[in-house]
Amino acid sequence: MTQENQTTAAVVAIERAGDHVGQTVAIRGWLYNLRESGKLLFPIFRDGTGVLQGVVSLKEHPDAFAALKGLPQESSVAVTGKIQAELRAPGGCEIHVSAIEVVQRVADSDPYPIQLKEHGVDFLLDKRHLWIRTPRQASILRIRADAIRAARNFMDDQGYTLTDAPIFTPAACEGTTTLFEVNYIDDQKAYLTQSGQLYVEATAAALGKVYTFGPTFRAEKSKTRRHLTEFWMLEPEAAYLHLEDMIELGEGLVSAMVQSVVKSRKRELATLGRDVSKLENIKPPFPRITYDEAVQVLQKAGNPTKWGDDFGGDEETLISKNFDKPVVIHRYPAAMKAFYMEADPKNPNLALSFDMIAPEGGGEIIGGGERQSSYETLVKRLREHNLPEQAFQWYLDLRRYGSVPHAGFGLGLERTVAWICGTEHIREVIPFPRMLYRVYP
Amino acid sequence: MTQENQTTAAVVAIERAGDHVGQTVAIRGWLYNLRESGKLLFPIFRDGTGVLQGVVSLKEHPDAFAALKGLPQESSVAVTGKIQAELRAPGGCEIHVSAIEVVQRVADSDPYPIQLKEHGVDFLLDKRHLWIRTPRQASILRIRADAIRAARNFMDDQGYTLTDAPIFTPAACEGTTTLFEVNYIDDQKAYLTQSGQLYVEATAAALGKVYTFGPTFRAEKSKTRRHLTEFWMLEPEAAYLHLEDMIELGEGLVSAMVQSVVKSRKRELATLGRDVSKLENIKPPFPRITYDEAVQVLQKAGNPTKWGDDFGGDEETLISKNFDKPVVIHRYPAAMKAFYMEADPKNPNLALSFDMIAPEGGGEIIGGGERQSSYETLVKRLREHNLPEQAFQWYLDLRRYGSVPHAGFGLGLERTVAWICGTEHIREVIPFPRMLYRVYP
Repeated sequence: MTQENQTTAAVVAIERAGDHVGQTVAIRGWLYNLRESGKLLFPIFRDGTGVLQGVVSLKEHPDAFAALKGLPQESSVAVTGKIQAELRAPGGCEIHVSAIEVVQRVADSDPYPIQLKEHGVDFLLDKRHLWIRTPRQASILRIRADAIRAARNFMDDQGYTLTDAPIFTPAACEGTTTLFEVNYIDDQKAYLTQSGQLYVEATAAALGKVYTFGPTFRAEKSKTRRHLTEFWMLEPEAAYLHLEDMIELGEGLVSAMVQSVVKSRKRELATLGRDVSKLENIKPPFPRITYDEAVQVLQKAGNPTKWGDDFGGDEETLISKNFDKPVVIHRYPAAMKAFYMEADPKNPNLALSFDMIAPEGGGEIIGGGERQSSYETLVKRLREHNLPEQAFQWYLDLRRYGSVPHAGFGLGLERTVAWICGTEHIREVIPFPRMLYRVYP
Repeated sequence: MTQENQTTAAVVAIERAGDHVGQTVAIRGWLYNLRESGKLLFPIFRDGTGVLQGVVSLKEHPDAFAALKGLPQESSVAVTGKIQAELRAPGGCEIHVSAIEVVQRVADSDPYPIQLKEHGVDFLLDKRHLWIRTPRQASILRIRADAIRAARNFMDDQGYTLTDAPIFTPAACEGTTTLFEVNYIDDQKAYLTQSGQLYVEATAAALGKVYTFGPTFRAEKSKTRRHLTEFWMLEPEAAYLHLEDMIELGEGLVSAMVQSVVKSRKRELATLGRDVSKLENIKPPFPRITYDEAVQVLQKAGNPTKWGDDFGGDEETLISKNFDKPVVIHRYPAAMKAFYMEADPKNPNLALSFDMIAPEGGGEIIGGGERQSSYETLVKRLREHNLPEQAFQWYLDLRRYGSVPHAGFGLGLERTVAWICGTEHIREVIPFPRMLYRVYP
């Protein structure tokens, strides 16, 4: 291990290399790939912002040639060279290398374990700390970061105040079967949050329009492509707002996330081979159908769903095939929904709830609705659901002291990003996925 | 519970009421306080964005007078009235109420538990879901949200990519005594993260400059004013950057957070009675002293600290009294620091580490430094610290495959916000504080 050279050329990020055509610059990164062809070497470098192809000539730069020849993949290197336009190269330019400093040479006896070939997914998940270096995974993570930034900016611009819900909670929000139990201090027990909703209902009564955006946890024994035990949710809640307001907010939020990625992450979407025209189309308004209409759509398509059934992944995909934008399904049967849902005044068998289903089989990305604001009804519901009334006293306080109509929703970050990226499995869209039998690395 | 009136007047947020002087508007919120004086009522309303004083005349608006008279505190109300300039009022205006719709009347038999008087802190923490409605607590939460927004924008603008570190981790980062253990699925064990650092070291090798910003957990049996069991940390990490770069990044980050709050949250800082001139001064560069110099400062002040001792809260406060900006203390004795710290090439007994101590007794808000990049040294350190080598294999991979110099730090959000707000205890700067014996509400 040597310190990198203090080169006189300015260090530039690969994603900005195209701005420096004709200039000699320095790149600090890693050797992603190397092709040798007689007296020429064709390396590909990466620095975290992108990949850059290079060329090294034995005749012109024998020292650089010697340093690079046979260098194992993923060795770290500081490279100096001139940027030249090259339309065939990714990014439209390449570097003509004049000097190379090897920062750390990967041992020939212990080569980088991820080769430029297909590996099994279990192997790649075991090597997740290295797998994220590949262009596809790195692109997904950059898209995730951009989608998060866009989501936060949108919420802030709409006047919503971020109020982080706690991770440690004293009781279950919707039953205990999928809760993770923590050994708290001195033999106390605590549970990891499944949703910040009850807490943002409290902060909405203090601050008006609020949201929480953090990790949530479900101990579900599901191995589907849409399940993680640890995932991020964005949950807005607003006093004095109603179902319709939340559907509009959800449309605006999803559209802001998608359009930001389309605008700022063109290169990454190209790396993923994503059909960008499908994303460019994602602008409000989104189609809206009632639960009743959704059941009809399914039945017409030959699906055996009956009124009162919940929709699984297959049904969501079937419905979404009718639309080229996310579809909002509203007014589900009240019996299917959580105890805190407000009933539709026009039909008390229906809840003022909605889900948003992503197109292209992306599944449910938003679920929400209007909350029960009557103290008496809420107590009745808690009893009907056999929930521990004592643990909900603080939540009932929100109806004792200045109850107001209020509504909100939860957006699942990983499902949304997976749909934007066009990835099959959501395990690829979080840096370190946690699943049924995986908490490593 | 009645639905609020569909009034024809436009609904405005109280924080924007001053823009509507002379207009009739609607406010939707809660009755924060009420003073009665014969044929006049002087209510104070709040809506989450601020408080607005009002006046209701029996003669002019008998219906509104009747609806408001005797109305218990925190009843929810939809108010219509004309905004008038009133220099003596907070916000510079008041509302002359013409109509009031009581959305929910708090029962006279069960009044709002938090009165406009002093309560004990245990009582207030038990009622945290209501306590956050008071102007002081609501102001702190709005300042927190603004500081978070500023921090994220600063990091994004500096080219850092957000990569969320996992909450579930397989092993301890720095020993197991302060780890929370989780009952994972099928009798597996997992631990809650104490720091995302090791993970952002991996993502930095993939993406160059990265950060994580999420909740972290310490099962510390500390009851000091600076400890929570659940708190948020912002942790940047950058490949090819060094100690000096991280000190500069930390200065820029802290300054960006403070200056954003000074600019955007004037009203809230005034509510807290904060001396804003002290915050306006927080701009780079910050003073820097070595650990050696810090020991001398302490000894001159009569403190018994010897070279090699760590600094506690008292020492931090003593040092910070010499400065009106955060002070950077760098190059601590290597023996005091974690196994992953890089040694100072000029003196291997010192670590390339730094802490940043907030002024006014705010304590340590940043700790960080340059990471050990040599595989051999890191293995040696793991053994010296009796850490389980097997659990760190993935972390050692980062030194096997393209190791590079890299550095980072962790900023404690709550300590930073507590200092900005001038609050004594950090439990006030998180919506729902989790402490030694508190996971409720």
